[in-house]
Amino acid sequence: MKRLFLTALLTSALSMAGAATAEEQAPVAIAIHGGAGTILKANLTPEQDQAYRDKLNEAVIAGYAVLKNGGSSTDAIIAAIEIMEASPLFNAGVGAVYTWEAEHELDASIMEGDTLNAGAVAGVKTIASPIAAARAVMDHSVHVMLSGEGAQAFAVEQGLAMVENSHFDTERRMRALEKVKARLLENDHASLIVDPATVDYKFGTVGAVALDANGNIAAGTSTGGMTAKRWGRVGDSPIIGAGTWADNSSCAVSATGHGEFFIRNHVAADICSRVKYQGVTIAEAGETVMQDVLLPMGGTGGVIIIDAEGNIAMPFNTEGMYRASVDVNGEVTVAIYKEN
Amino acid sequence: MKRLFLTALLTSALSMAGAATAEEQAPVAIAIHGGAGTILKANLTPEQDQAYRDKLNEAVIAGYAVLKNGGSSTDAIIAAIEIMEASPLFNAGVGAVYTWEAEHELDASIMEGDTLNAGAVAGVKTIASPIAAARAVMDHSVHVMLSGEGAQAFAVEQGLAMVENSHFDTERRMRALEKVKARLLENDHASLIVDPATVDYKFGTVGAVALDANGNIAAGTSTGGMTAKRWGRVGDSPIIGAGTWADNSSCAVSATGHGEFFIRNHVAADICSRVKYQGVTIAEAGETVMQDVLLPMGGTGGVIIIDAEGNIAMPFNTEGMYRASVDVNGEVTVAIYKEN
Repeated sequence: MKRLFLTALLTSALSMAGAATAEEQAPVAIAIHGGAGTILKANLTPEQDQAYRDKLNEAVIAGYAVLKNGGSSTDAIIAAIEIMEASPLFNAGVGAVYTWEAEHELDASIMEGDTLNAGAVAGVKTIASPIAAARAVMDHSVHVMLSGEGAQAFAVEQGLAMVENSHFDTERRMRALEKVKARLLENDHASLIVDPATVDYKFGTVGAVALDANGNIAAGTSTGGMTAKRWGRVGDSPIIGAGTWADNSSCAVSATGHGEFFIRNHVAADICSRVKYQGVTIAEAGETVMQDVLLPMGGTGGVIIIDAEGNIAMPFNTEGMYRASVDVNGEVTVAIYKEN
Repeated sequence: MKRLFLTALLTSALSMAGAATAEEQAPVAIAIHGGAGTILKANLTPEQDQAYRDKLNEAVIAGYAVLKNGGSSTDAIIAAIEIMEASPLFNAGVGAVYTWEAEHELDASIMEGDTLNAGAVAGVKTIASPIAAARAVMDHSVHVMLSGEGAQAFAVEQGLAMVENSHFDTERRMRALEKVKARLLENDHASLIVDPATVDYKFGTVGAVALDANGNIAAGTSTGGMTAKRWGRVGDSPIIGAGTWADNSSCAVSATGHGEFFIRNHVAADICSRVKYQGVTIAEAGETVMQDVLLPMGGTGGVIIIDAEGNIAMPFNTEGMYRASVDVNGEVTVAIYKEN
């Protein structure tokens, strides 16, 4: 039933693009992620596995439809990310993890590869779509990054949809908070020296990268951050250069994982710098940063990468990463584990 | 009189280092900045000019003394930056610019080149030394970046010195706020599309980079941000990779200028990526980014750069930049304008 629906959706998306074939159009492509981590086949029921695949499929096809209709890479990644923000499956928007104080503090950022325009919000609590807020900052302010109450006030002024913080609540994340807090309080929680591997942080940040028919690439990322985070902690997702980067001359990247390591290695921008200055492919640059730079430091996670030719790479150094893509030939890939 | 005092201070600093000569020790060096902008000789009285030079001299010598005594590059940059934070001359700590709501919201960050450890605070209001708070985040939390009320609570927990927000007040910055608000309200302030060149933003961010006797480099930056900033705006100073970067394998950078452009070009990390991947010198990389990347976009400002050999570069694309350095030979430079 679900399968039929998805096939219908895909057909509809493609027919919306009119009679033009891939050969007649400039290449377009999109990739998305829904977080990386200890995602083993043994840990997901067949129903959970299918639910993730269905939602990833829905999101990537929605973004692809925008591109096939001549929409911008920015519109495409917003379309894909908003679907994942609205889904309780991912740690972004609805389903975001809880802070130490049992609230949700959301972060998002976006960047365009042709102009290097960028926008980000950090620590927002009642904006329905953080990625839409990041875009509003990019398009309608002279600033790149707004935070906290100020970012909220800006969103209200911009007429963005606002919700109660409880809008993002899910039972599953509340249980995760209780579990993490119990473990942290067993140890010396004041120092917060806790091995993320010992607790189910779930990561689950979402993101998208896309190439549009005008040859422009863009990247966006949205997250609830880290379970039980305190002290106004800001991770890599709203940091331009760490969690998100886009430059037509190299690549566009959205990251997911243990944010502190991604900041300390400016992961998104570094991958593109390697492409730009070393002349390596996005696949090579991504693999090097994930396996040779991050992993030895203990920095677990993954990235999705696209370049202006529509090449896609989705490297990660964890057991799995929720991910999907539609390449320049229209081929759809949806995968969770290392093999698929 | 002041000159005599400074000479005495320098002599004292150097004698504190004992009888060892530069040749006997591993090389150490330090560079600092106190902001870049439309700083013309015609705009400063001889007394103002001298006051800046004296304070820059005091700060750079304080940092250098730490290095000569075998202290770490981190200790050295903290020593230099805390002197500038305490001075009303610079837009950091005391003398920080005012937000739209006539408060001070301070940002700072720090990074170490051997471990890639980093710390940052954004939007803090009552921490006496934001750079000390950034260091506490680096040393005593598992996080890299803390913001707002949460960062304040962490600072209290860490026992850092706290002050009233009015501690940072100066008449001069209040007049600047009134001037900027008047201009913004004349125009369509809602869109905040204002040419920074038309108002006296003053920039004035402070920063330091240093090489210690163990061969480790570090960078730190502290700022009050932009006059009349709103909506919890975060500039480049607390963004690792944009305003601050340090990696022993390439260089350490602290930036000052129009922060949005520095984020969109991840300036600090990009300079080091060029050094690392293109094999250019820090002087070449810095000049390219300042003149060929930032200036055509309208991104004005400057950077200070040091590498693990103690080479120093201080490029800027504005009329002037408050800056000072002590190189590996112990030679002290203090300069404001293009020529000196």
